[in-house]
Formats: sequence, structure tokens, C-alpha cells
Amino acid sequence: MWRRSKHACLRATQFAKLLFSPHLADSSYLHISTGLHLPVLLSADVQSTCNAGESTGIRIVCGVYMNWKRPLNQQFWKHWQRGLATSPGATKVFRDPRFAKLEESDMQHFQEIVGDKGVIVDSSELEVANTDWMNKYHGQSQLLLRPQTTQQVAEILKFCNSRCLAVVPQGGNTGLVGGSVPVFDEIILNLGAMKSILSFDEVSGILVCEAGCILENLDTFVGTKGFTMPLDLGAKGSCQIGGNVSTNAGGLRLLRYGSLHGNVLGLEVVLANGTVVDMLGTLRKDNTGYDLKQLFIGGEGTLGVVTKVSILTPPKLASTNVAFLACEDYESCQNALKEAKKQLGEILSAFEFIDRPALDMALCHLEGTRDPLPSKHNFYLLVETTGSNEAHDKEKLDAFLEAGMELGYFVDGTVAQDSTQAGSFWEIREGISEALVKAGAVYKYDLSVPIKSFYRIVEDLRAQLGNAAVVVAYGHLGDGNVHLNVSAPKYDEQLLAKIEPFVYEWTAACKGSVSAEHGLGFMKPHALHYSKSEEAIHLMEGFKKLLDPKGILNPYKVLPACAATSTCFVSV
Amino acid sequence: MWRRSKHACLRATQFAKLLFSPHLADSSYLHISTGLHLPVLLSADVQSTCNAGESTGIRIVCGVYMNWKRPLNQQFWKHWQRGLATSPGATKVFRDPRFAKLEESDMQHFQEIVGDKGVIVDSSELEVANTDWMNKYHGQSQLLLRPQTTQQVAEILKFCNSRCLAVVPQGGNTGLVGGSVPVFDEIILNLGAMKSILSFDEVSGILVCEAGCILENLDTFVGTKGFTMPLDLGAKGSCQIGGNVSTNAGGLRLLRYGSLHGNVLGLEVVLANGTVVDMLGTLRKDNTGYDLKQLFIGGEGTLGVVTKVSILTPPKLASTNVAFLACEDYESCQNALKEAKKQLGEILSAFEFIDRPALDMALCHLEGTRDPLPSKHNFYLLVETTGSNEAHDKEKLDAFLEAGMELGYFVDGTVAQDSTQAGSFWEIREGISEALVKAGAVYKYDLSVPIKSFYRIVEDLRAQLGNAAVVVAYGHLGDGNVHLNVSAPKYDEQLLAKIEPFVYEWTAACKGSVSAEHGLGFMKPHALHYSKSEEAIHLMEGFKKLLDPKGILNPYKVLPACAATSTCFVSV
Repeated sequence: MWRRSKHACLRATQFAKLLFSPHLADSSYLHISTGLHLPVLLSADVQSTCNAGESTGIRIVCGVYMNWKRPLNQQFWKHWQRGLATSPGATKVFRDPRFAKLEESDMQHFQEIVGDKGVIVDSSELEVANTDWMNKYHGQSQLLLRPQTTQQVAEILKFCNSRCLAVVPQGGNTGLVGGSVPVFDEIILNLGAMKSILSFDEVSGILVCEAGCILENLDTFVGTKGFTMPLDLGAKGSCQIGGNVSTNAGGLRLLRYGSLHGNVLGLEVVLANGTVVDMLGTLRKDNTGYDLKQLFIGGEGTLGVVTKVSILTPPKLASTNVAFLACEDYESCQNALKEAKKQLGEILSAFEFIDRPALDMALCHLEGTRDPLPSKHNFYLLVETTGSNEAHDKEKLDAFLEAGMELGYFVDGTVAQDSTQAGSFWEIREGISEALVKAGAVYKYDLSVPIKSFYRIVEDLRAQLGNAAVVVAYGHLGDGNVHLNVSAPKYDEQLLAKIEPFVYEWTAACKGSVSAEHGLGFMKPHALHYSKSEEAIHLMEGFKKLLDPKGILNPYKVLPACAATSTCFVSV
Repeated sequence: MWRRSKHACLRATQFAKLLFSPHLADSSYLHISTGLHLPVLLSADVQSTCNAGESTGIRIVCGVYMNWKRPLNQQFWKHWQRGLATSPGATKVFRDPRFAKLEESDMQHFQEIVGDKGVIVDSSELEVANTDWMNKYHGQSQLLLRPQTTQQVAEILKFCNSRCLAVVPQGGNTGLVGGSVPVFDEIILNLGAMKSILSFDEVSGILVCEAGCILENLDTFVGTKGFTMPLDLGAKGSCQIGGNVSTNAGGLRLLRYGSLHGNVLGLEVVLANGTVVDMLGTLRKDNTGYDLKQLFIGGEGTLGVVTKVSILTPPKLASTNVAFLACEDYESCQNALKEAKKQLGEILSAFEFIDRPALDMALCHLEGTRDPLPSKHNFYLLVETTGSNEAHDKEKLDAFLEAGMELGYFVDGTVAQDSTQAGSFWEIREGISEALVKAGAVYKYDLSVPIKSFYRIVEDLRAQLGNAAVVVAYGHLGDGNVHLNVSAPKYDEQLLAKIEPFVYEWTAACKGSVSAEHGLGFMKPHALHYSKSEEAIHLMEGFKKLLDPKGILNPYKVLPACAATSTCFVSV
């Protein structure tokens, strides 16, 4: 008996039976679920060389690790390893054999579309484009295309779709989940040459530009008109607005200006089959039909390629203040946030959280960093205000500080006297990530949890790990986004097994998100089910199939592979 | 020869040929496009009694009007008129014969699901629920169901889908486009009994509640916690949050807090087949997969029934100021908006526009209304600030007023001295609509246009109409949302023909929206193509088909009928 299933939960023995089943089509995907959903594609040659072997256990921990009682046919493992993607991470997949391999005639066709300059085959250029900026994911693409117009993007995709050539759209390639690099030999569609500003309305602050515009350049441009971009990221010097939209980038201004789902007013998108969908409205209000563009915001390039963006930019405000505050317990941090909302109201622009171990990391590993406060405390808050009137802002900040001290929410604190000091406070907060890397091995989790649970997960993980590692927490308390890090002298599989799926299950239990702002990319499709219901994932699969029936757009990403490409059959 | 087409453009003679063609299936829809896309369903009996008649012209102006050289078979017209929906408006459709008619056994089944109290067949109650609040649209439903739980909604829809019984979801029934009343005999699914507040996080301000909660009740509830709802509407005493979400209601606070696409954090939705999709997140940041909930925001109940809502509420601010200002030209109004953004920055909460004819309407027809300023001017602005510190806000407002006067942006103005006077300014702005109704016949258009074009459409329409009518404009200048009204002593088809499609074409030419905040409902599906590209409409059709293959959810609404239900074949 075979039945269609999206999220089959197989026991180890079932998995083994299935793996060697003659019924398994060579293009089928399996979801192996032991808490994780792990897409595994069996290529025909692997399958044909497999001998059925008795298995007694499969262990799947952030990747494919198997313990078999009897060693398997060596030929199997050879094929298995050869076929696996070289990218490390949670999902390891075989190249989907339905995708065509690049041929000489294809190259000629691409040259006709984008000209010689738009076709990149130089190995050093490809090396850069094949590698993500963490140097963690490495693709093997032999071709990068650099179109200059939407029409060229459309012609490229139309051709790729007809030939079943897989494509990975790429912006600034600054993502943190391996979403913008090839997994195998996907053609890299780089949007960097499409970098024109198309219009700016100085009354409404609405900017329309091409997808390849770099965020910082846009911020500089609108800055000259008295406006600012509604998002700000560490990677702003490299990241492109099309990539920002495609990953629904969060960043430092989200607390104040909200997400891109509210700020993006329109998009131009090219679908997998080359259809250009013009949704490039420049209106704050438009209730004519379904708001389609929203699906492409955070679609991570799997539903279409964003080629143009219309975005609302808020007025640039003149005054910024930064305070660094100390609290004794997490309850006080929450109370301070409530008080900040009350007292600072419309000028609150950041409310960041650092626990003592996180501050210690920065102090210990970042050169020139010093504790802003004279004595040690358990928790720290970085509170920023941005407003149009400096005197008013300072008065409001003083009132907040006075009330907070009086109510005992914070026990010490200091306000930056100038932008240099403000910068030094921000450097501590932003430098923790780098400090953790310097400290040794680090296991990183970017979670959204209800604010009341924000620190409980840290405490529970500490209890779970004991003395095995240091658990460090910081993040955007105002947004409920905690960056949970486990620091250890070296990477250790036993430690990892204690962390996962503990952290994901904990997050799921409080209806949190296993990816607050980074997306899923190639790193976390297997963890999607921790944050989304089966029905929701089923709908996502439906949308993917509707918009990209052949699955050529950014394959192996976002959805468990089964959803993205083919029907999945499992034995029952 | 027959070919599949979604947007067939037929000339009059082609239409006539098609109308009487023996090839026309009794369930086919036609789009008759002479600038409009008009869904017409021919029922089998109409078709069978039609005699082919020679036609020389069809005139389609916001409805079905035809001029034939020779009078048609009287029997045809009898059937035609009997079969047409009784609702006036742009689209006139026949009842889709694929929908089943209610049977006694259905009633028993519904009673088992929701109990006796949940099944309403009382004619006076049905009369209310069949009629929209403008008394413009009148359905003929014989059954209203009032479920109390999501599970009951799911069971109802599952059953209706299996029986092919059409359903219209209904909240407070305060919509302006006939979206929440039946067109024919659709079952009314009223969410009013699902009115529980499920949770409120006093730190983050995140509210979770059932769809039937009345907006004003929610605002009162969160108000006691120091928060406010991010939307405010005239209908707040009756409208329900589920309906607000389903229509993507705009309203008075949009300028400040943005649209529901940014503020709604999660939804629970029941699909047409009864599947409950839990997307009820309570997180500000969640980048795990496609943001599905966005499609149901503004989906007008055609893709699923919203049963629960999670929404971010901003802190309630203590201080409000209102100024009433006069400008001599539209350029100055735009400059004043720029200056307001600069000077008022984070405290600007409304920037409303009224032209002199609009003010005159209010002064002439609203009892007790008087001009806030001593002399006449061409344009008026109502500027509101909301902030956390009264003294600061007043200082900022004074600076704005001083700068605006000095720069000559406004020539006169007054600031409300208390909430009563502020209320009287708002009454003028909000009373114009009522004044227009008192003045006689009124043709109303709710348009979004780029701010620079905001008043040009008014001037062009005046030139187009000459002395035939008074053109009046007011609206949310800060959002680019103009309420364009034509006032005349009586309704006149010749006048209408001069207004439409002129206004829609003008709006389309500047990439505006023919429905800024009201939605499409039953009134404007034919006008969708003025604001959305063919490719976008095609995608919408795809999503509708995917989520509601039988088209039982709110039929005849939002999409041109062909899209919503069946394949369309036209002769070529």
C-alpha cells in the first residue's frame, strides 16, 4: 500500500525499507521525520546499487547521520556521498535529476539574451558567487548571468523553464541561511546590474527602484531628500533591495517602522515561466483584489524573481539618543519595555537586550571594549530614541529614566553624551556575534518567542546543558527576537544533540518562530514544521506548484523538498 | 472555433452572435469588455427561449444596457430580468446554476452542527442580513447560520462544499461595496457570535481575539491596558475585526500606523473545504515560509473565512491637537504636507484635504455647521497630531504653523482650543458624505492616486462635465486617497456616461487604484482591470481556484465571475 503524504513520519526500520524499495521512483523525495523533516533525494544510480540491508537505527541530527547495525554495501555509500550537496547544514540533498545540465547551445542562447558581458564563466568570479558570505555554503555553478533589464530576466527564465534548467536568484549574497547561493549547478541569476532609481516622490516619500540597488546607496539617495529607508542592516553596504524584499529582512528599524510587508507598496516580479507580473503600485492604499506582492516578500526567490521595488520611506529625523541600562532580573527588563512604550511613545526606535554572559563575551574578545557601567549586573538594555526635536526627545528620555529608576526597573545606567559614545554602546551590542566566533565553537539560533518567554528558553537551555557550554543571549527585546547562542571550546556532536531538537521543540511549544528574520534558505527547510502547521505548509506547497510547476526557482530551499518539486509517496 | 480566454474583448456584434450561439454551455460566463469586464451568466432556460436577433449595438455602462435595432423576443427579456440579481451596481449576473438549492435535509444537518439557536430562518432577521447598510444591495438568502466556534465554521463549510451550497461570510455588514450580503440565495455565515478576546500581552501589545469582536469593543478593551487599535473607522461601533481584516479596512489611523498588512500578525482561517489553517502567530518577526495570511487580508471572504485574528496594538498616546488650515492652491497643500512631515515628524496622525465645494456642501446641508475661518479660500487641510507629551506636541505644531505661514503654504488657519472644537472640525470633514446625499444624487469614487495627481483628476472631471454637475473632492491627502464625488439634482444616465469610464481610465492612466480602501465586493469586479494587470488578475484567479475550487465562498464578488468559478470559452 502506498499513500500520498507530505510529512511522513517514518521509524528507522520503515525508512530503511523504503530506501531500498523497488517502488521508489528515482525522482521521489522522502521526508524523514524524527522531529526533523529532512529532504533526501535518491538518484537512480544510487538506488540501483543499493542492496537491502537490515537496519536497526537511524539518527538524524542536523544533517544525515545514520547508525546501522551491519555496514551497508560500500558502493551505496560511495554514491550517497558523491550525490550529496557539499553544503553543510541541516539538509543534505541529491541533485534533482529532472533538472537539465547546461549545454553549449544554452550558453549561446544566453549570450543572445544578455550579450557577452552578461554571461560570466570566469572561475574566480564564479567562486565568489558560489560561496555565501559566511563561507559556509559552496555551490558548483558554472554560469552566472547578469541581466540589465526585466525583459532579459524574463527571457532567461522563459528559456530556463522550457529547458528545465534550475536557477538561483542572487542579490548582494549577504544572507545567513544559504538562500542565495547554488546548492549544485544552478545558474546564478545576479541582479546586480539592475541598479537604477526609477522615481522618488518627495511629497509621499515613495521610492521606486530596480532590485539590484544597494540598500546603503538608496538610504544615501533618499537622505538627500530628507527621508530614510525603513530598514537598516549590518550588511547595508552590500545587500540589495531585491534581496531584502525576498528575504523580508528585519533589522534595526523594525521596532519603529514595521516590516516590509507594511512598507513595500509594489513589486515587479518575473515568474518561473518568464511572465512579468507588474504589481509596481506606488499607492499607500489599494484594495483592488488580492495583495499578491506579499507572497514574494519573504518568498526567498522560490516563487518569482523580484526585479523592481516600490517602497515607502519615512521622513529622516534629526535627533538620536542612546541609553545603556542595567537590570537585576528579566521581569524588570519587561517592565522597562512597558515603561519605555509609555514614556517614550512615538520616539522609541530600539530596545535591545544583552545578558551578562553576552556582555562578558564582548568585553573579553573585542579589543578596546569596556563595560559602560562601573559594576556588574545580570541584564542590560540598549534603548534608542529617534525624533524630530532634540530638546523634546531628551526631556522624554529623562522622564523615562527617572520613572524607571524610581520604580526599580533598572538599577544603573548611562546616556551617551555624543554620537561617539552612542556608537560605542551599539558596538557592544553588534559585536557580540563576532566575539562569540572568537571565543570558539558557537551554535546560533535566531528565534522569535513571546516576550514573556524571551528569557525562559535561555534558562531552560542552561539547565539542559549544565556545565557543558556557555549559553549567551541578546537580541531585539522590543520585537521578541532573541539571538540564542551556545558557546563551547569546540564543535561536539553530543552537545549538539542536547541542543537540538530541544531548542526547536521549546520554540514550537510556545508558538515561536525558528527563524525570526533570517529566513529558511537551504539551512532550515527541515525545521519549517516547528513554526508552521501542516495545513499551512500544504498551502505553501500549493502556491509553489502554481507559480513554479517545474520547481526551477531556487530549488532545495525554503520548503521541504517534496513540496517544492515532486509528489511524495511513502509506504504505510 | 472556440478558444479559452479570460478577458475576451468582444465587439457588439460578436457579443450578440455569442449570446445566441448554440455552443454556449448553460454554465458559461462571458466577459463583455468595452472598457469594462462584465460577467454575465446565461442560465439554460434563458438561452433556450432566446431567438437569434440581429443586433447592431451594445452599450455597456456600469451595468448591462443594450440598444438593439430590432426589439428582441419579449420572452428573452422576461427571463433575462427574472434571472438577474436584484442588486444594483456595475455587475449584473445570473445565479450560477452549479450551486445547489437549500433542501430540508440540509437544514437538519446545520441544526446538528450549530443547534437551533445558530440556525436563523426568521424573515425579519434575514431581511436585515440580506441588505447592506447603504440599503443598496438586497440578497434573497433564506438561511443565516451563526456558529460559535471555529470547529462549527469548519463543519459548515465542509458540508456546503460537499453539497455545492454557496456561502457569504458576514461580519458587521458595514461594507460599502456589497461584499457582505448575498447576491442570490447564498447561505449567510454570520461570525457575530464568535466574540471572545483570547489573549492580550501587556508588554508587546499583541491582542488575539475571535473574528466577531466589534472594533470599538476591542479599542475599549485595549484602551484599559494603555493601548489603542491601529485602525479607526466611522463604523467602529458595528464593524467586526474579522470583516476589517477581510476588507483590509483603511480608515483614519493608516497614515500613522500603516495598513493591516503590517499590523495583523496572525490569522486563523477556514478554507472552503472546511480545513482550518492555523496561522495565528503572535510574533512581530517570523520568516518561516511564505506569509500566507496576507492573502486573506483584503481577500473579502472569497478565499477563506477569517475566524481568529492576532494584531499588534500601539501604545495609546495622551495628547491630540487639530488644526484647520486654508491654502490658495493645490501646490501649497502638497508643500504643507511636506512641511508637516518635516516639522511634525513622528506626531503627525492625520492630514486631511477638503476643497471649497466640499466645504460648501457641509456648510449648506449640515445643520449647525459653520466655517471655521472668517473668509473663503480654495482649499482646506485638517492636520492632526497625536503624541505622548502635550507641551512638546504644541510646540511642534506651533513651529509647523509658523513655518507654513511664513513660506506661504497656508494663508489662514486655526487650532482647536479644546476637544469640542477639534470634534467640530472633524465633523465637517466626516460630514461631507452625508451632506452630499442630502444635496441630491451623488456619484461616488474612492480613488488612490499619486499625490501630485490628487487634484488634477478633479479639475479634469470638472472640464469634462462642464456645468452639468458639481464636482466635489475631499479625502486622506496624506495617503493619496481622494474621495471624488459628483453631485447633481437627479441621477442621469447621460451624466454617468460622461463620468465613466472617464474616471476609471484617468485613474488607470496614472497607475492609481479604483478602490483605495473599500474593496471590490459585488460593486467593482468589472473595474479590477483598471488597477491590476492581466497577469496579476490571472494569478488571483489561480489562487482562488486553488483555495476554493468550487467557488462556493462569496461568489460573484472581487474577481470577474469567469475567474471565480468556471472556465470561459468565447468564439473567435
